[in-house]
Amino acid sequence: MSTFGNYFRVTTAGESHGKSVSCIIENCPPNLALTESDIQPQLNRRRPGQSAITTPRDEKDRVTIHSGTENGRTLGTPILLTVPNEDHRPKDYGDKTIDLYPRPSHADWTYLEKYGIKASSGGGRSSARETISRVAAGAVAEKWLAETYGVEIVAFVSSVGDIQLFKGGEASSLSDDPAFLALADTLTRARVDEFLPVRCPHPDAASKMESRIAELRDAHDSTGGTVTCVIRGAPSGLGEPCFDKLEALLAHAMLSIPAVKGFEIGSGFRGAEMRGSHHNDPFFVPEELTPEQAQTWGIPPSRLRTRTNHSGGIQGGISNGMPIFFRVAFKPPATISQDQTTARYDASGEGVLAAKGRHDPCVVPRAVPIVEAMAALTIADALMAQHARQMGMRVAGGAGRS
Amino acid sequence: MSTFGNYFRVTTAGESHGKSVSCIIENCPPNLALTESDIQPQLNRRRPGQSAITTPRDEKDRVTIHSGTENGRTLGTPILLTVPNEDHRPKDYGDKTIDLYPRPSHADWTYLEKYGIKASSGGGRSSARETISRVAAGAVAEKWLAETYGVEIVAFVSSVGDIQLFKGGEASSLSDDPAFLALADTLTRARVDEFLPVRCPHPDAASKMESRIAELRDAHDSTGGTVTCVIRGAPSGLGEPCFDKLEALLAHAMLSIPAVKGFEIGSGFRGAEMRGSHHNDPFFVPEELTPEQAQTWGIPPSRLRTRTNHSGGIQGGISNGMPIFFRVAFKPPATISQDQTTARYDASGEGVLAAKGRHDPCVVPRAVPIVEAMAALTIADALMAQHARQMGMRVAGGAGRS
Amino acid sequence: MSTFGNYFRVTTAGESHGKSVSCIIENCPPNLALTESDIQPQLNRRRPGQSAITTPRDEKDRVTIHSGTENGRTLGTPILLTVPNEDHRPKDYGDKTIDLYPRPSHADWTYLEKYGIKASSGGGRSSARETISRVAAGAVAEKWLAETYGVEIVAFVSSVGDIQLFKGGEASSLSDDPAFLALADTLTRARVDEFLPVRCPHPDAASKMESRIAELRDAHDSTGGTVTCVIRGAPSGLGEPCFDKLEALLAHAMLSIPAVKGFEIGSGFRGAEMRGSHHNDPFFVPEELTPEQAQTWGIPPSRLRTRTNHSGGIQGGISNGMPIFFRVAFKPPATISQDQTTARYDASGEGVLAAKGRHDPCVVPRAVPIVEAMAALTIADALMAQHARQMGMRVAGGAGRS
Amino acid sequence: MSTFGNYFRVTTAGESHGKSVSCIIENCPPNLALTESDIQPQLNRRRPGQSAITTPRDEKDRVTIHSGTENGRTLGTPILLTVPNEDHRPKDYGDKTIDLYPRPSHADWTYLEKYGIKASSGGGRSSARETISRVAAGAVAEKWLAETYGVEIVAFVSSVGDIQLFKGGEASSLSDDPAFLALADTLTRARVDEFLPVRCPHPDAASKMESRIAELRDAHDSTGGTVTCVIRGAPSGLGEPCFDKLEALLAHAMLSIPAVKGFEIGSGFRGAEMRGSHHNDPFFVPEELTPEQAQTWGIPPSRLRTRTNHSGGIQGGISNGMPIFFRVAFKPPATISQDQTTARYDASGEGVLAAKGRHDPCVVPRAVPIVEAMAALTIADALMAQHARQMGMRVAGGAGRS
Repeated sequence: MSTFGNYFRVTTAGESHGKSVSCIIENCPPNLALTESDIQPQLNRRRPGQSAITTPRDEKDRVTIHSGTENGRTLGTPILLTVPNEDHRPKDYGDKTIDLYPRPSHADWTYLEKYGIKASSGGGRSSARETISRVAAGAVAEKWLAETYGVEIVAFVSSVGDIQLFKGGEASSLSDDPAFLALADTLTRARVDEFLPVRCPHPDAASKMESRIAELRDAHDSTGGTVTCVIRGAPSGLGEPCFDKLEALLAHAMLSIPAVKGFEIGSGFRGAEMRGSHHNDPFFVPEELTPEQAQTWGIPPSRLRTRTNHSGGIQGGISNGMPIFFRVAFKPPATISQDQTTARYDASGEGVLAAKGRHDPCVVPRAVPIVEAMAALTIADALMAQHARQMGMRVAGGAGRS
Repeated sequence: MSTFGNYFRVTTAGESHGKSVSCIIENCPPNLALTESDIQPQLNRRRPGQSAITTPRDEKDRVTIHSGTENGRTLGTPILLTVPNEDHRPKDYGDKTIDLYPRPSHADWTYLEKYGIKASSGGGRSSARETISRVAAGAVAEKWLAETYGVEIVAFVSSVGDIQLFKGGEASSLSDDPAFLALADTLTRARVDEFLPVRCPHPDAASKMESRIAELRDAHDSTGGTVTCVIRGAPSGLGEPCFDKLEALLAHAMLSIPAVKGFEIGSGFRGAEMRGSHHNDPFFVPEELTPEQAQTWGIPPSRLRTRTNHSGGIQGGISNGMPIFFRVAFKPPATISQDQTTARYDASGEGVLAAKGRHDPCVVPRAVPIVEAMAALTIADALMAQHARQMGMRVAGGAGRS
Repeated sequence: MSTFGNYFRVTTAGESHGKSVSCIIENCPPNLALTESDIQPQLNRRRPGQSAITTPRDEKDRVTIHSGTENGRTLGTPILLTVPNEDHRPKDYGDKTIDLYPRPSHADWTYLEKYGIKASSGGGRSSARETISRVAAGAVAEKWLAETYGVEIVAFVSSVGDIQLFKGGEASSLSDDPAFLALADTLTRARVDEFLPVRCPHPDAASKMESRIAELRDAHDSTGGTVTCVIRGAPSGLGEPCFDKLEALLAHAMLSIPAVKGFEIGSGFRGAEMRGSHHNDPFFVPEELTPEQAQTWGIPPSRLRTRTNHSGGIQGGISNGMPIFFRVAFKPPATISQDQTTARYDASGEGVLAAKGRHDPCVVPRAVPIVEAMAALTIADALMAQHARQMGMRVAGGAGRS
Repeated sequence: MSTFGNYFRVTTAGESHGKSVSCIIENCPPNLALTESDIQPQLNRRRPGQSAITTPRDEKDRVTIHSGTENGRTLGTPILLTVPNEDHRPKDYGDKTIDLYPRPSHADWTYLEKYGIKASSGGGRSSARETISRVAAGAVAEKWLAETYGVEIVAFVSSVGDIQLFKGGEASSLSDDPAFLALADTLTRARVDEFLPVRCPHPDAASKMESRIAELRDAHDSTGGTVTCVIRGAPSGLGEPCFDKLEALLAHAMLSIPAVKGFEIGSGFRGAEMRGSHHNDPFFVPEELTPEQAQTWGIPPSRLRTRTNHSGGIQGGISNGMPIFFRVAFKPPATISQDQTTARYDASGEGVLAAKGRHDPCVVPRAVPIVEAMAALTIADALMAQHARQMGMRVAGGAGRS
């Protein structure tokens, strides 16, 4: 299946060689102001070639809303978004050895194993273009979350290869890192984009990362990296206690992004080294909320907060109203400009898959809006799940009628 | 929802204070030999108190099959499994301050936020007893996988606190670690259980871990750890290309286990530091399969293998027939025998939540069968998804009739 | 799958020869008062032998709540209900020719075709005992609907064989029948049960039906019949516009009951003979609602009503707040006390399946609570679906905060 | 949700005023030959204006495949189909009283109740254009079913108003009607289309129906009718025993079509009047299958057949390999060329909704391909569900390896 979510639900279609990449969003709440201009900015952030900012904006990856809105408002009915594939001839790839050899660590071989049919070279659903649909749908979810609940989702590059944004790097937990905790409260997408092309919000680290990527490109190689994401303002009560814990839904979302190899929430792998007396997040009673803050669209804000946040905003699988944060590991792109010895499709033996021309040596800067999109889809879905229950709850509890 | 899987589907129920914990398994293939004795061993492995092996087996956590089998064979109809809660009086917990304070880093507060109602102290779905249902259902999935496809799933403790089984610890990738790669091919559950109570398959490491756990218990504290899991013999072609990549399903499964904070597949977070030229897994043509090996229950074995396995057995979200392996991080248990200062449920201020008596200072040894169960449920579901498609595939392709 | 509903979701298990029939209810709103005594009455109504009212109540089909409640209130967590199979030895059936011949118009043959394994004689999921789980789950749904929204669901027998409760019988539409329309507004379950054993709320018709059933029993034969159901007080706005129209969900629910062959909503098959000018239901503005009536648990009452109700309370797939009513056709029970010539399981030829002793010659009286249960599950699910959306709606529309 | 099916799954989008109507098909088996020309014919059959056969084909409702195929073969990936809305200005409708009054028995009012927002006049998902997506997706399902299993699905008009194709009309069961049973074995779509414009395969009945429709058009009125559908060649074993019985899935599918008020399978409502001794379908052993017939794509043909078919090809919710047939009741179109007195949207009172110009006085002839499409989607989904289980079955049973 190519569907994400049970309530706010997205179904995607499209591979690089077809007419378009697309998605249908079901159950988007009605009466939300929505036009293409709400979606296009995140698509632009996902696009390649963003380092040359002075370059005139070209018109690629333009999204069209086909249905589900009228007069700039959602109707509550399914929204079809399409983005045309401008040039869907199979891409050039070396000397056509690509027809003989499945690319190492690509999806070529496993698709063939799964479907018994081979899409044209460079094509298939494993293409990076598949993520366009995610970003488009995520932008819609995000608009609803931002306007209705004030949710803010910001991702950024936290490492490229072994160059780490934070001092301790992965050796220390984000939840113990003052530098991260400071960023977590205030970082915006605009600020992140000041550090294009790498989107690492620190001048020194960003500069080192940029050099590293350039080096690897020149060495015909590629590198991995990590993206960290913060979700501020998500209501408490989201996530299901058992199999659909909120962190499980986020992990599912993140590991579904091409090239992702790892996910950690809150203290993450470092938490596995901590003691309970340190890891536990004690509660405290925050200053009284302003009437403004106490207002709520159906889900009142939590009356308690925690002094530390090793939990990453989720306890027992359910959000507690604190910032949610997590880190995502991306492997180095499999397409590299070096010859590679590997086996033939027909299992007749090994040979050399010829190097391709230019390629993207590091995906994390462009992965930033994809991580944000998947986070938004996850939170929107969990929110609607909680609404379904909550309305009946207030009723059953006799707490009051609306 | 409390449901896992779309094809081989499990729905669980039960909290610690009710009459039982239970699950219904839907769509288990018919004609599988199945009695309680196929399920009980994994439940026993999950139970506490396993270090005193000489202790006479008590009769706790006995599973009963209510439906879905007859004469020791599955019928294809839903299987209800129940395990009684022997003593479901609310547990003692200190001096009842537990009624006044939500426990730090427990689910007490978030459940209240979600449901607006508080289950009795120590109770609720966040209880460790909820995992009994998972282990029971997983044992059924596993039997089908083992008997039909020869799939073997083995998990073990790879770290307790900062004591690491593998030399490089988390600083090096499993996929580059000869010690791990050797284990991956041969390790069995029986071998793992030789290292009770910690289930770390190495005498020195196991001994250090055991001491560490004892120390922490004496210090009224707790510690986290990691579990590593290997799946051997899973057919190629499993997993859906887009949102339901096999690693995404595994991540979802693992992060749904209580106390899990992180997941990494194959090279994992270390992969984010590698170069593509190192990370790529070149294919080779293996020795011809014996007729025995070439036999197949519907899904033929892959004709190619990879020389390295940074991919962890999954490429483009689809299994490639190589061993699948991943690592899971568990936080330290939140229940500790120390007083904790925290806020009251009624947000009236802070106070001291009194220490509880004895507790389990480290969950990873008992988490081993839970990780195995969730892995089995994930693979069984992906296999049935592939069967649904595959049968039509062979047909459409005209490859032959059965 | 054995699951009904996406929000208020029920999964059932159990066949006649196992230890119990059971269900897990997911997503029942928390804080609803619920004990076994809320469920048992509908189970009693479903049981056989209800015509001998003076017989002391025996203790069969007793339901147990295993989980999901505490202190008589739902927790919002999954509810496991079980009803033991008191005597689960395979039933006697004639001279064991049942082992040689699949019973005509039973599920014996098709189960074998589907699963490749034969459950014991008289057993299997096709047993009438499977409906116990539906009735139990439906009683929970119904309690929530009644207490929260004042929904009332009443079904009754409208025909047995060719004996029709309403004058025109099936030749006229319920929506044009004054006798039905009068009943629809006021009929209660208590009133229906005054007409036991047939549950047809009219003395003459009930008496004729009772005689007919007795006749057929004596003739070793069986008869079909119809059940009509009215849902009063369901909020407007329920049902999804496209594939999950409310009438489609109800049809799905009803045709899933064993022995059902037909379903019609509102004007039904008679509507196919009407002209639009007659069939259209014009709107009018009802008297102002009393403050009591105008109160609402989240979903305000419709400000318009229709003068006629050929639509059966649903327009465009969405409830309009008028009474919903439909008719369900049940075939005659396949088990009859006559020898039947039919083919052998092994396709070796034909022979005689020997007659069984006593049997139930008409199922419709006992089907009444089953129809009510499935109606309740359908409406509860649709209500939660609408809540999920609606909360976001009010928000997006800025109509007000709760 | 706007999704149908769990395995062969379709999600639709689009209302009459947007850019297109569309659908995404997930899980269509790979390697199926598929181009637009496989889909267009059924779309043409759905279109209005088919009575003037000599009219040059105009180019409306042209379908485009955006993704999921390459070189005319399916890839197994999601297929996006779009059909543009040529002229998506809001339709003229009388004197704009349509903005003041919700149309009686239309979806205008209930959409507003559900979504709190009003789509433009004549628009919305309740438009007949929504069925285009169903027909397009159904054509794909049908091609797979026909090529792989030889399934044939043929629907036809069986009544218009009170003019019945079959002598006994609805007063006798299809399963007892020799005229129907003869048709059921041989009728083709080509034959049905010989009776355009009404698609009733009998010259006299067709001619009377045509006159009746003309009369009603002249009388500014409309009429209902019924469509009967036969599915030949569906394998045995399809359908789930409990909630997802095959007849329940078909009923769901049919009642989801706009304007449908009733559904009956096999003996249907007439079955409710029969005795068991008549209704039961005895089995017999058919002549040995030819090697050709005995060939099978995964699901072998049933070794037994039934002498009668009151069951309509489904027993215990599972197909038995006999022809499946059912009847569907459509109400008269709500849009009529007469003034109608009804209430205002704002509940300020009643007034007159002005008559519209021309309209379609009877929908059943155009509903024929819609019924076929929904039947195809239902069978395709059930087939894939059975494949998922069956493959594991053969394995568990040790019946043989493929």
